Order: sequence, then structure tokens, then C-alpha cells
Amino acid sequence: MTPEEFRSAGHAIVDFIADYRTHVSERPVLARTEPGDIKKQLPTAPPSAPEPFDAVMRDLERIIVPGLTHWQHPRFFAYFPSNGDLSSVLGDYLSTGLGVLGLAWQSSPALTELEEVAVDWFRQMLDLSSRWSGVIQDTASTSTLVALMCAREKTTKYSLARAGLQGEPKPLIVYASAQSHSSVDKAALLAGFGRANIRVVPHDAEYAMRADALDEAIARDRAAGALPSAVVATCGTTTSTAFDPIEAIARVAVAHGLWLHVDAAMAGSAMIVPECRPLWRGIEQADSLVINPHKWLGAAFDCSVYFVRDPEHLVRVMSTNPSYLQSAADGRVKNFRDWGLPLGRRFRALKLWMLIRDQGVSGLQARVRRDLANAQWLAQQVRATPPWRVLAPVRLQTLCVRHQPDGLDGEALDRHTQAWVDRINRSGAALLTPAVLDGRWMVRVSIGAEHTERSDVDALWTVMQQEAGR
Amino acid sequence: MTPEEFRSAGHAIVDFIADYRTHVSERPVLARTEPGDIKKQLPTAPPSAPEPFDAVMRDLERIIVPGLTHWQHPRFFAYFPSNGDLSSVLGDYLSTGLGVLGLAWQSSPALTELEEVAVDWFRQMLDLSSRWSGVIQDTASTSTLVALMCAREKTTKYSLARAGLQGEPKPLIVYASAQSHSSVDKAALLAGFGRANIRVVPHDAEYAMRADALDEAIARDRAAGALPSAVVATCGTTTSTAFDPIEAIARVAVAHGLWLHVDAAMAGSAMIVPECRPLWRGIEQADSLVINPHKWLGAAFDCSVYFVRDPEHLVRVMSTNPSYLQSAADGRVKNFRDWGLPLGRRFRALKLWMLIRDQGVSGLQARVRRDLANAQWLAQQVRATPPWRVLAPVRLQTLCVRHQPDGLDGEALDRHTQAWVDRINRSGAALLTPAVLDGRWMVRVSIGAEHTERSDVDALWTVMQQEAGR
Repeated sequence: MTPEEFRSAGHAIVDFIADYRTHVSERPVLARTEPGDIKKQLPTAPPSAPEPFDAVMRDLERIIVPGLTHWQHPRFFAYFPSNGDLSSVLGDYLSTGLGVLGLAWQSSPALTELEEVAVDWFRQMLDLSSRWSGVIQDTASTSTLVALMCAREKTTKYSLARAGLQGEPKPLIVYASAQSHSSVDKAALLAGFGRANIRVVPHDAEYAMRADALDEAIARDRAAGALPSAVVATCGTTTSTAFDPIEAIARVAVAHGLWLHVDAAMAGSAMIVPECRPLWRGIEQADSLVINPHKWLGAAFDCSVYFVRDPEHLVRVMSTNPSYLQSAADGRVKNFRDWGLPLGRRFRALKLWMLIRDQGVSGLQARVRRDLANAQWLAQQVRATPPWRVLAPVRLQTLCVRHQPDGLDGEALDRHTQAWVDRINRSGAALLTPAVLDGRWMVRVSIGAEHTERSDVDALWTVMQQEAGR
Repeated sequence: MTPEEFRSAGHAIVDFIADYRTHVSERPVLARTEPGDIKKQLPTAPPSAPEPFDAVMRDLERIIVPGLTHWQHPRFFAYFPSNGDLSSVLGDYLSTGLGVLGLAWQSSPALTELEEVAVDWFRQMLDLSSRWSGVIQDTASTSTLVALMCAREKTTKYSLARAGLQGEPKPLIVYASAQSHSSVDKAALLAGFGRANIRVVPHDAEYAMRADALDEAIARDRAAGALPSAVVATCGTTTSTAFDPIEAIARVAVAHGLWLHVDAAMAGSAMIVPECRPLWRGIEQADSLVINPHKWLGAAFDCSVYFVRDPEHLVRVMSTNPSYLQSAADGRVKNFRDWGLPLGRRFRALKLWMLIRDQGVSGLQARVRRDLANAQWLAQQVRATPPWRVLAPVRLQTLCVRHQPDGLDGEALDRHTQAWVDRINRSGAALLTPAVLDGRWMVRVSIGAEHTERSDVDALWTVMQQEAGR
């Protein structure tokens, strides 16, 4: 495609997205499509000759868009908000259009240096001390995998330079609570620890990890000849936004020489408002920390910031230095390829940088506060309306709710819950995520899509009452 | 940013990129910037209040663009071509603008199903059999890490479900040649195998792995009580584009029960033209294969396709299934979160799909053939011009060259090589990558940027002779 064809088609794409965002609230939130519906409308073989751009646009409107679940919809209350503010979208447009890669500082110096600057802005917004250094990864899954690999290498004093994990005489152990995200288990398994060496630390009635139980589990493992390696604490669990007590956990981790990784993927964005910061008191004592600006904050996916206190250790675990990547600048610059898994890197800093400049810190804070207030408002309505129940503390913007009519319990209650949430989701009026808490299905209401206003939450509450009351 | 602000700013960004691409050939290829130059022009703290879009655009032109190394420049002969064809760029613009995520099929069905379709088109373009299933990952580094984790779990019969790699009685061994990419070593180390369990298999005079030497190394390890696990073969090595003999290596791998992973990250794109396919004869016998359409083919970075023959095994190694990700469609759909490391996934298929439709298979083939012919033409010039030498077979689009005047050898020759390539790179006229081959520095000429025509290669050859002859 020539630059002039791109200019014309690009304007059409921008208009298409502007229109899409303007009218997204008129669409059903959840795609109304059955498995295979999209595939069967598309040719099974690639075209031999070029096709005109207009043909692609027609397929987009006719086939692709009806097959989307609309994450930018103001009544998207599912999973977590993944806000792609349009200023950040433009940052990503620049990145893709410039088409430069960050294999090394030299391969595009501005890519590396703007990442240093934008991530450091974000650090300041979170009120983290300057002892933290950050880098942009794709997702929290990857960041947590990197963290557990770093923990493994710390505990074994760089076993990768010798016989690897398989050469270690004592089994290394990882600790997390049952409320931690599935990516923590996945990371521990992929890093080679093994299911038998993952300890599920008990949590309290508010779904927060018990530091005393962690301490006991570590002592038991030590007594049995194992080597406690890492604990993953969560700031804002997926199911209920519980906060593991970082300060107390850090004390245990320091006492026993464990790596403390903090998963604040979703809730970390809240820490740009000072009143939320007590929730992660002790954070300065962690070894690594992941926060995803591509969730609540509004950076276009993917943009996961991984902070570490000891970048030298990270680089020692992740570095490679073949001749074809060396340059005269190497001693004086950061080569972010040595801060994570991939060698090739997009110019992701642009989308974070442009978001922060477009909104200003004050604008981002205002949006977070709006969502916190909306969640408290909804919690009040639910609590005041029997037989509705709020099942867990509403620390930030997620509610765990259940409609629990008298006499309904056990599997019958589960069926009721799944039926009403399913009716809402199929109606297209809103999208909610059912999940299991304490062995029973309930419904998560995750508030915080960029354009979710009080009126949307109000409308949701109305439809919840209608559908559960049927 | 509102949709209407986005419409206007988005048009400006599209125009900016159209102009950038039109005039990129007038810029020096390599950024003329010293470490810290970019950073010191940027505010150290984030803005409290919103800033106007125009201020960002000014900084972009004044600070960011001068700090780029221009990968889309027609005289970019460094590293590898990372072509972001503008049709593919638009596919990525759609992805970012729509802002949908592929956590699960249900979280945007079109995202998953278009990925199935686009990756299968690509499979057909490569003439791979329908026994292969593919998924889009970010980079070959990640794909190779996934491959070695899968090998580890295959050899240990799913040790991750027990005590992990640390519970295995015999050391697992990984094999690759010294010419394999740095990401292979990195993946083996991060997957926990350990440096002591990576075997460097000798290569022949043309830098291709010796299958007989692999066979011997495996036999030695078996005799010593170790457990050979995986061999990574390369189609198109980074330094010289050597092709490891897949057919012979596969025979050895099958005989000994090893996982065969093929790294065709760069050269795989050549397999869309039938005349290149003899170079990877035997490919159907591999277990996994990575090819990056974001390199030579023209898909906007990042777009790495990971093909496997046994997707059930991949899913068993990578899967997680927490309640908050379950849906009624689960048994009937692909959930690509279980095909790789990250849970969250962009709508990457759009950029591959739009590239193939815009260019047609015939258009992509024509571009590959143009680059193959340009490389052969340059090789002829170099060979016919003493004291220049072509140091390795020119299988595709990369030449390894040296200017080797009589009487110059050893470190003096290295200094001469580094001096002339450095003069070219600093001049901005072209960009080349120096690398080490057989212990001596030489220069890689990687031809294949999208807009590199014969005249650009001719101009490069002129400047090479000028600068080396000084």
C-alpha cells in the first residue's frame, strides 16, 4: 500500500473508529454469535491477487464487528476495564506507523529513552520511591512469569548458569493464596517449580492472605528440607479485589529470605489517588511489582509495567549479548531486551506517554475517583435491597453480589444466579462476569469502563433487579 | 479524548505517518543521538493538567523522530527487515481502536476466529499440511520459550503436574548449533534446563548443523545417564542464513524421541515461494515451528506465528481454567490463552489478514523474489571485486561480506572491518550490522526492506567500496 493510499484509507479507518466509539453504546455488549459463525463467512483460502480496501471494510462491518464483545461499551462490567483512551490509541497508531523496533538502544534510541521517562512518570504518579525501575511488558502473566524466574535464580544463586533448576538439591517452593490470579499458578508451573511445590496459603474472611499462615507454611517447608523461594501477594484479587497485607507479608518474606512479587495488575492504577495508598502499605519492601496501565488507567492494550528494585539481577537473568546486537553505546544505555522475555519490542511508551499528557494526572485521578464513588453507590443500593447481598468488602470498583431469596441455597442458588446473569448478558444490555466465591457462584460487577457514568450503573442495577426478580 | 477530537487528531496522525513514510528515505538511517539526548529534552515529572494534542505533535517531530533508527528506510540493511506494510498498519489501527481483548473465545469471538482463519491462510501459503495448527505470539523469543517448555513437559510426561523440573531424576538436555539465535539459549535457560545441559552441536563449513554430530551427542548423553529432550534447528540462521538440514535432523529426533523445534523466524517467509521450499525439506516432521510475518513478509510488528502438530499437548501445558474465565461455549471453541504465555491478547489477526488481502499471495511472492534477486546481484558484484569476499552461501537475502586487502588479517582486519562499517552507519547513507563469523568480524547485508529496490542495493555497494577503500 502506498503512502497516498494509506492516507485515504487511514482517514476512513480513523472515521470508522470515531463512529464506532461514538455509537458503541447502542450495540449489545456481548457478541451474539455462535461458535463458527464468523469463520464460515470467510474464505478458507487466501486471495491470490490483491483485493481493494473497500472489500475489506465491507467485511469488517458485516462480519467482524457483529462478532465482537465491546470492551469500550459504557455498560461493560465484565472481567476488568480495559480502557483504550483515544489519546493512547493515537500513541499506538504512531508506534505501528513508525515501525521501529527496540532490539537495543541503538536500534531506536527514542524508543528506549521515552520508555524510561514514561515509566518513571508512572512511578511518580504511584508515589513509589526512586529505588524502583520499570519496564513495559505485554501482560501481567508475562511479568509474573519473569518475576518467578527471577526469584528462582535468586534463591539458587543463578542455577541457570549451572545445571538449571533440575540440578538443585532441595525443592524450591512458591506461596500464594487461593484468591491469586490463575497466571500465578501458570507462571510457577511454567518456571518449572511444579504443582507439588506451590503452597496455597489460607486467607481470612475478607479473602486476604494470612501472613501468619504464610509464616507457618514456610517454617513447615524449611523443617521438611525444602527451600522457600517466592511469595506472590495480590493487591486487588480478581474475584473480589481483596488486598493481601503487603507490610506483614513483606516482614515474613524478609525474615525468611523470600522474593516478594506483588500482583497489582488491576488495582495498582488506583494508587494514583493518595487515599487508596494505605491499601498497599509496605509496597516499598517488595522485590517486584506489576501494574497494568492497559486496564483501568486507559492505556491501549498491551501495556503492563513491571517494576523491580534490583534491575541488575533482572538483567543478569534475562540478558543475551550476541555479536550482532552489540554496539558502542552498550555500557552507557539500557537495553530493555535484557529486562524481559522478547528480543523485539514495540514503541509501547508512546501510548502511555500520550495518555498521561492528554489527561494529565488530575484527569486520570478524577476518573478513578468517579469509579470508586459509583461502586460505593451501587454497594449501598444492593445492601439496602433484600434479598440482595454484597459478599465481600468493596475496596475499589468491584462488587461481588448475589440475589439470595429465602429458601434458595446450594445448587439451586447457583442455578438461579447463573440464570439471571445469563439473561442479562444475552440481552446485550450489560455484561457481567459470574465467578465462584467460597464454592458458590456469584456475580462480579466490575465498574470502570472509561465511559461508564452513574446513569449506566443505575441502569445496570435496574436490569439486575428485573432479571433476578423474574 | 472524545471521538470527535480523535477524528481530527487521528487524521493528523495518519497524515504524519503518510508523510513520514514518503520522506523516510531522505533521513539518515541510523539515529544521530548520544545516550541521554532524548531523555534530557523531556520533563522529568508528569503533567498535572491535560496538555493540548498539538504540544505532543511538536515534541514528536522535534524530539522523538530525530531519535529513531528508521527500519522502514529503503537503505536499512541491518538486523533483519521488519516491514510494516501500510495495509497491515491499518489492520493494527483497527485492533487498537476497537480495543477488544481475547481472554477467551466469548470475550470477542471474531478475534479468535479471524486468527484461526488468517493463520490457516498463512499455513497454506507456506505449503504446510493441514496437520499444523497455528497461533499468533508476540515474538520468536516467546514462541521458542513455549516450544522448549512443551518439550520439557513431553519428555518428563508433565512434570509440572508433579514436582516440576526440579523433581526429575535425570538431567534433560537441549541441542542447538552455535549458529542458532541467542533466543534459543535464553529460552533453554529460562525454562530451567541450565547452561550445563545445553549442547552446542558442531556445524559444517556452510554453518549448518551436522546431523551426524547431533546423533553422536545424543548417544553420549544417553550413555552418561542424561535424558535428551529437544533439538532446535534453524532455517536461516541470524548471522549467515544457513539452513540446518531438517530432514536429517528430524530422523535423529524421531529415532531418539526428541522434540524438534524449528526456528524459521526470518527465513520462513521465503517459503511462500515454491522454489525456496527445498531448503526446509523435512519440515513436516518437526513438532513446532516459528515464523515471524512481522519480519520480511510485511505484517506490522508484533506478529509471530507459532505452529504445532499437537495442539492438545500445547493446551495441556499452558491451560488455566478459573471460574471467571469459563463460558458455555468452552467445549466447542479455541481459547487461545491456552496456546501461549499471556492471558490477555490483542486482535493481532487483523494485521495479517489485511496484509494478505491487500497484497494477495502473488504480490507477496513477487516482493520476496525481488529481494532474492537483489541479493544474488550484490553477491555477484562482491565476488567479482577483489579484495572483497562473500563468506557464506547466499541462500536467501543476506550476505556476509568482508573487504580483505592483502596482508591484513587478525585483529587488524577486525579493526578495518569495524572502521568502514562504522563510517557507513554514521554517514546515515545506509545501515549494516557487523557480526562475528568464525571468530572474525564481518558485515551482514540483510536485503529486504519493503522499499529497497535494485537502485538502493547499487547505491549501498558504491558506498561500501568508497568507505572500505579509504
